[in-house]
Amino acid sequence: MSLKVIGILGAVVGLAARTADPRPLTGYSAAAARIERDWEARFQSIPSPNRLREAMRRLSARPHHVGSPYDRDNAEWLLAQFRSFGWDAHIETFSILYPTPRERVVELVAPTHFQAALREPAISGDPTSAQQGEQLPTYTAYAADGDVTAPLVYVNYGVPDDYEELARRGVSVKGAIVIARYGGAFRGIKPKLAAQHGAVGCLIYSDPKDDGYAAGAVYPAGPMRQRDGVQRGTVIDLSVEPGDPLTPDIGATADAKRLAVSDAKTIMPIPVLPLSYADAEPLLAAIGGPLAPERWRGALPITYRIGAGPARVHLRLRSNWEMTPIYDVIARLEGSTAPDEWVIRGNHHDAWVNGAADPLSGLVAVLEEARALGALVGQGWRPRRTLIYCAWDAEEAGLIGSTEWVEAHAEELRRHAVAYLNSDNTDRGYLNLAGSPVLEALLDDVAREIADPETHGTLWQRMQALVVRTGTPEQRTEARTRAHLRMDPPGSGSDYSPFVHHLGIPAAHIVFAGEDDNGVYHSIYDDFAWYTRFDDTSFAYGRALAQTIGTAAMRLADAPLIPYDFVGLAETSQKWVAELKTLRAAEAEQIAEQNREIRDSVFARTTDPREAFVAPDTVAIPPHLSFAPLENAADALTRAAATYDSVRASLSAGDGSRLDASAVSAVNAIIIQSERELTSRDGLPGRPWYKHLLYAPGLYTGYGVKTVPGVREAIEEKQWAAADAEIRRVGAALDAEARLVTRAAATLEALR
Amino acid sequence: MSLKVIGILGAVVGLAARTADPRPLTGYSAAAARIERDWEARFQSIPSPNRLREAMRRLSARPHHVGSPYDRDNAEWLLAQFRSFGWDAHIETFSILYPTPRERVVELVAPTHFQAALREPAISGDPTSAQQGEQLPTYTAYAADGDVTAPLVYVNYGVPDDYEELARRGVSVKGAIVIARYGGAFRGIKPKLAAQHGAVGCLIYSDPKDDGYAAGAVYPAGPMRQRDGVQRGTVIDLSVEPGDPLTPDIGATADAKRLAVSDAKTIMPIPVLPLSYADAEPLLAAIGGPLAPERWRGALPITYRIGAGPARVHLRLRSNWEMTPIYDVIARLEGSTAPDEWVIRGNHHDAWVNGAADPLSGLVAVLEEARALGALVGQGWRPRRTLIYCAWDAEEAGLIGSTEWVEAHAEELRRHAVAYLNSDNTDRGYLNLAGSPVLEALLDDVAREIADPETHGTLWQRMQALVVRTGTPEQRTEARTRAHLRMDPPGSGSDYSPFVHHLGIPAAHIVFAGEDDNGVYHSIYDDFAWYTRFDDTSFAYGRALAQTIGTAAMRLADAPLIPYDFVGLAETSQKWVAELKTLRAAEAEQIAEQNREIRDSVFARTTDPREAFVAPDTVAIPPHLSFAPLENAADALTRAAATYDSVRASLSAGDGSRLDASAVSAVNAIIIQSERELTSRDGLPGRPWYKHLLYAPGLYTGYGVKTVPGVREAIEEKQWAAADAEIRRVGAALDAEARLVTRAAATLEALR
Repeated sequence: MSLKVIGILGAVVGLAARTADPRPLTGYSAAAARIERDWEARFQSIPSPNRLREAMRRLSARPHHVGSPYDRDNAEWLLAQFRSFGWDAHIETFSILYPTPRERVVELVAPTHFQAALREPAISGDPTSAQQGEQLPTYTAYAADGDVTAPLVYVNYGVPDDYEELARRGVSVKGAIVIARYGGAFRGIKPKLAAQHGAVGCLIYSDPKDDGYAAGAVYPAGPMRQRDGVQRGTVIDLSVEPGDPLTPDIGATADAKRLAVSDAKTIMPIPVLPLSYADAEPLLAAIGGPLAPERWRGALPITYRIGAGPARVHLRLRSNWEMTPIYDVIARLEGSTAPDEWVIRGNHHDAWVNGAADPLSGLVAVLEEARALGALVGQGWRPRRTLIYCAWDAEEAGLIGSTEWVEAHAEELRRHAVAYLNSDNTDRGYLNLAGSPVLEALLDDVAREIADPETHGTLWQRMQALVVRTGTPEQRTEARTRAHLRMDPPGSGSDYSPFVHHLGIPAAHIVFAGEDDNGVYHSIYDDFAWYTRFDDTSFAYGRALAQTIGTAAMRLADAPLIPYDFVGLAETSQKWVAELKTLRAAEAEQIAEQNREIRDSVFARTTDPREAFVAPDTVAIPPHLSFAPLENAADALTRAAATYDSVRASLSAGDGSRLDASAVSAVNAIIIQSERELTSRDGLPGRPWYKHLLYAPGLYTGYGVKTVPGVREAIEEKQWAAADAEIRRVGAALDAEARLVTRAAATLEALR
Repeated sequence: MSLKVIGILGAVVGLAARTADPRPLTGYSAAAARIERDWEARFQSIPSPNRLREAMRRLSARPHHVGSPYDRDNAEWLLAQFRSFGWDAHIETFSILYPTPRERVVELVAPTHFQAALREPAISGDPTSAQQGEQLPTYTAYAADGDVTAPLVYVNYGVPDDYEELARRGVSVKGAIVIARYGGAFRGIKPKLAAQHGAVGCLIYSDPKDDGYAAGAVYPAGPMRQRDGVQRGTVIDLSVEPGDPLTPDIGATADAKRLAVSDAKTIMPIPVLPLSYADAEPLLAAIGGPLAPERWRGALPITYRIGAGPARVHLRLRSNWEMTPIYDVIARLEGSTAPDEWVIRGNHHDAWVNGAADPLSGLVAVLEEARALGALVGQGWRPRRTLIYCAWDAEEAGLIGSTEWVEAHAEELRRHAVAYLNSDNTDRGYLNLAGSPVLEALLDDVAREIADPETHGTLWQRMQALVVRTGTPEQRTEARTRAHLRMDPPGSGSDYSPFVHHLGIPAAHIVFAGEDDNGVYHSIYDDFAWYTRFDDTSFAYGRALAQTIGTAAMRLADAPLIPYDFVGLAETSQKWVAELKTLRAAEAEQIAEQNREIRDSVFARTTDPREAFVAPDTVAIPPHLSFAPLENAADALTRAAATYDSVRASLSAGDGSRLDASAVSAVNAIIIQSERELTSRDGLPGRPWYKHLLYAPGLYTGYGVKTVPGVREAIEEKQWAAADAEIRRVGAALDAEARLVTRAAATLEALR
């Protein structure tokens, strides 16, 4: 411990005594905890709503999508900001394949003619909506060029269940153009499944039920999507891998070896375009055929039908397939004691258009955190570990800025990274946490210490109240009794994905959500005028976000012993193993029941002869799976984690000063690798880029997480042999994790 | 057994041998069963789809609402039909209070002006829709006169849960006009609750989500409600009592002592009018205030909001409150052996306008049954018991024709009635049964023997398949393993109600439903043109309905021993007692949980300060209830029923000829009173007309049934002392029932 730190300790002991929360800080001695809490209190007082607002105003002043002048301009401004806060910052550039549209046509050609406008008009009183010369047109990036005319089929969300429904009605999308509504899964899943089922084109529209008039007043009267609003977005095949399609696994540096465009695996094979509901309504109204099931129906004043036809649509899409530079801004605050242990924090800076909510509402918190941490350095603070703050480019295109950086720096990140903390589009409401279980306790502790801007309590109290009010009885009991609120595991859809899924770096996605319904997502109306009328208008939640994530970053960076929670990891693993067993049993029961119903003519007897219905085929009854390897490994991890925790607890007893011994670094050197043990060099079946064995975005959800995905998706897909093999592979990883934790416990034991 | 019957037996034995189903007929000796099955087979061959069609054409040729010339004309034609079939028929006339509208105004007066059309236009290709001179205007009968102008509040279905939601949002309907959508409960519940909450007027509209374009193509392209279609209907307070409001408990004969109109208890105290969605849309669109909860939103292309205001509506309703004659057609076929035991069958003949589906689709089956039974008489058949076939008037006004007849003949019905079988509006699809549990086995047996018109199987196989496909796992298992498919208990909404609820006559409502979505209910478009394009167009289900109910009527009329199923009654009673215990426990748990959440500030912490929210108040924790009297009585009934069944089974063994002994009449004389034992002279709390203690329409559902209503509604209303008292009262009734069944078993035993 340096003299300087002791000096600080003396200076702030009064302050520290005032903090009411007596919870010990995991990984800290009592003395170090007092110092830490003092610095955190100072930190939390710095972020300023007004600075958040002004940063958003500046960054959203012009469209700043990938390749735009203002995208680069913003990166340079961000660079200057970080430097002005005292950080060691630079811009890292990659060159990526980035398509922008050259020709876009959607027209109904039968039974009547209708030409889709494919454009969003400026709104009076919203100055940036009129910057049409700089706006990207409405499109979905990374869809193939094509020019097709075909019957139209409505496929609801276009997810696997919907194709099951189509099959029951005897409707095929082969040779058809599908129209899907937004929602239910990552948008890229819709054309992917459509193409797999033989469709030649895909339209995706925003139904007013989901974010238009049915959900509230539309812009500019309210926050919801008006009739011409269009959701842009990428349709890159995120479930296979994010990042530049031409440089899988490697950074898209100037000299990287690139695939030919025709060999890229993540470009959608059919043309796709997004539509407003004004453009979609005449198309949907012209569809005939069977009535759409009740849950497929949106809020347009029409009879929703499935097709195919008689509506026929002409869809043409031609893009400029060009190489485009992107600009990641990377800022560094060197650690004092453990500079080679990195705590990383990021949020993207690129937007589809002006992007006030997405991504700037999160990015401005990054900036305020960096400014506040810089100010602490001015007051004498230095993080024990190195902090790396990042503003990513090309997230909207497919998490490309972060993925390329992760791929380019994979080796050093595997050695050095302790954690990655992410944010993105954030609103008012409840703190939403999704991430690696080893971070759950840390983040839960922080949430207990930050004041909620709207209620007389903490963020944590609101989070718990929400589960109590809206959860199942089991969730409610858990929220009242479990040591920590249960955190969601990490899916995809923002920049934490490459860190956790590709490299096994503990990561978390941290935003506020739940109170601001939003119908401007990825449209020209997500801008400063909209945000400051309808979202976190006082920037109080922006400040709370900076306080929350900055505190978590400090606590991770300053802890003598890295505060991973292996008990939480073990308990969560046990829960997932139990879920998998239940899943197989439920699947077996469902298949047996359905087979019986087929045998008993139940479908034939419940079919209206005026309606087409195709009964399902019988399916082989699933075998029992050998879950023992997974169960034994989860048990081993549970025992190891308990041992580790008990040693840590006895070291923390009293003043816990042994945690301040430099020998603790030997333990850190072990546990920094703990999440990496949960990955596999070979990756998941069919998608080797995804190396993490405990969580990945679902192959057919795109954003939504699948835990123990190799096993879970094998069960869902009825690949029973594969499921058994994956059980053994995941069991081996959990065994390795148990050994690592046991080794860490023994090393920690030596400090006593 | 008469010589004639033996002669018939010889003649038909070959036919009887061909019937495949070997199930014994409960209450019959083997010989009597063979004869019965033969007559039933002959009966079933007679009903003719073409005659059903032609009868519907004739009866629906002009509007035939209460008081119209064609209502009387139809009654006289029906009388002539019954007589031509050989029945002893007459018309019984009552004089009822029947309001028809003189002035109707609905207009939006702020923030803009809109005048509701309140009329349904003729549709080309639908000749009767143009009979505007004879049509009743769109209105809801038995709403008070009034002329009010007030802010508008949208209350969803206007049921108790909806008022709970309004309270949470701090919205009051006091002094307001409410607009409710059709659905969720009997329409009369909507103004009743609105008035109880202080509203001064009520509008009820048909949302296109429920039976308009969202549910399918609209008329004349399809069967669903077009923009101007209006659902008429009564808003009489059915849950208090049906029938003429001026003659509660007594028949509305010419000389009946009548209440003053101002003393009538079942007239709605506020003005009410129904609206098409074309008329409703401008009103709903003008409402401001909080966003309607998601499940409140319909399919109009608007943002559904709650109000109150700024929309203000002027509603004026003035009716002609006149005495009007109604015509019940009563036809009788005298029983041979037991003429004083009556099996009654009915369906109403009055309609809101032309009424092809409602009521004629059911009434034409009544006619075909009567014709076929008349034909059997010509072939030598005579029912053992008396059959009474009825065509009721003024059902639409509030089950008035049947209720007045039941009240006028209460004493003889109490002595003589064995069962009442009802139908009404029927469609294609699945046989729907609702009724007294003692009839469940009989109807289930019949359903096993009638062929389904659309599938290669019986009605019963389709019914079972539907439960298997759509039920819960528990319902599915029960449908596969229970002796009979579980029948719903009787709610209200058609003419069985006075029989079962007021007098305790075992009754059942029997229709087909499930395949014909319908958006013409109670509009001018429910006519022959619509029905023969979109409903049971081949009248195959009309024929099946006649076959089903006619067979059930014959089997009830011919059985030596009345085939009541006391085991089913006992099992059902046990189930309801268990449900009541679960209900109390769930209520107690829910209250305790909510109180805890209030104490823990859960509501305060999950409220968006931009939205109004009023947390609920804490409620006293429910006491435990003394269920023992009900449990002991249900056990006693279970034992008595088992004894009765075992005696009956041993008497039925071999040729079962002892069942043919005339002494069986002594048993019939006992059990004919069995359902009467389940009634109470005092009736249900607050609604003494409802005498049945095991089922009634809910006080706040109107149609939907509540089983053991005194106890159930006391628990739902948190009237714990009342619940305990009702438990004792129902327990006493079940005890009396057990004693009656024990006495019947002993009397039956004497036949051995």
